[in-house]
Amino acid sequence: MNYLQDFNWRYATKRYNGQSVPAEKMKNILEAIRLAPTSLGLQPFDVLVIEDPELRNKLAPAIYNQPQVTESAAILVFAAWKNLTAEQVDRYMNNIAATRNIPVATLNDFRKMILGSISGKSPEEIYQWNARQAYIGLGFATAAAAIEKVDTTPMEGFNPAAVNEILELEHKGQTAVAILAIGYRDEEKDMLANAPKVRRPADSFFTVFESETVTG
Amino acid sequence: MNYLQDFNWRYATKRYNGQSVPAEKMKNILEAIRLAPTSLGLQPFDVLVIEDPELRNKLAPAIYNQPQVTESAAILVFAAWKNLTAEQVDRYMNNIAATRNIPVATLNDFRKMILGSISGKSPEEIYQWNARQAYIGLGFATAAAAIEKVDTTPMEGFNPAAVNEILELEHKGQTAVAILAIGYRDEEKDMLANAPKVRRPADSFFTVFESETVTG
Repeated sequence: MNYLQDFNWRYATKRYNGQSVPAEKMKNILEAIRLAPTSLGLQPFDVLVIEDPELRNKLAPAIYNQPQVTESAAILVFAAWKNLTAEQVDRYMNNIAATRNIPVATLNDFRKMILGSISGKSPEEIYQWNARQAYIGLGFATAAAAIEKVDTTPMEGFNPAAVNEILELEHKGQTAVAILAIGYRDEEKDMLANAPKVRRPADSFFTVFESETVTG
Repeated sequence: MNYLQDFNWRYATKRYNGQSVPAEKMKNILEAIRLAPTSLGLQPFDVLVIEDPELRNKLAPAIYNQPQVTESAAILVFAAWKNLTAEQVDRYMNNIAATRNIPVATLNDFRKMILGSISGKSPEEIYQWNARQAYIGLGFATAAAAIEKVDTTPMEGFNPAAVNEILELEHKGQTAVAILAIGYRDEEKDMLANAPKVRRPADSFFTVFESETVTG
């Protein structure tokens, strides 16, 4: 399959050549994130798309001056919601009702179920739950970019408090959980550009419980 | 782009028709998970591929008897490692050295960096970190399945302790964090099979910081 070749071609790029990503490809990658599944469909995170070189320069120290921040075409900051409020749930219910052209009252049971799920969790549990959903989005972004033959680097090595401060995320009730650099690899400077991909062998990574085969 | 059509076609399937997934497609979906990026490349989770109907029947109550568990072709259980040990890191170093045909001693700095990252985190932080990596894999699985025109259902509604018990995950230092049902939708029984996809509008989901446009 062609997409598996793309996923094999993908690697966590260390050095970019500064080339920008065509608007159409960037749009597709973002759309993939928006289409990613999330728990109960809540999409409890925002994505900041930062092309502006000045803002990336300002962020660089908070991301430990990793070269991808300024050499790439853009960075995406995945900002998980720290909470889930009844207001956010109601906005979601209104969105379902409008999209599917149904009365919002028909969603009462679903609404109650979601509010019940939330009330059973501590604030820390809700934040971790939301953060995990952002990682599904990170997966979709990385997969879509590979199919578009655009390079990416998922990054967790940054100072969240400093990133939050610069991007004014705290007062929005959000925190940066992952950053994805996007652009084109610099094959000459990046020693890992042509290194074979290292993966756990399938027989240690997967445990398969097959349907029992009828033997004669 | 064709893959965006596939991602649009995808939805969290509620009812399956029991049809099995061709071995080649299943193999591709699993390979996508194995190729997914993870923090530092550690792949700190295992994937249990459960086709066996008997085992799925046994698991059903622990997954609140959701019909996807037994009506689908298989379920994948994403089991996050609860810890990261020096032994696991060394196994990874040996894998890198073998794959890239380099002396393992050349990886000493990388090894120390990883062990430093681990020692700076509490057991709970390590577990949450690992769980997030599993969600990237969940994203890749869901994306790959959509491209293969295979239906999926990401599921978090289950009793982890009960699932861990049945699958004997605890003594392996693992815990089930997400389950993915895989198979083919039953369009007649599944009321959501043809419902329009509900998503936050792009202008509320994304905040774009463009490169400053030079104006005359």
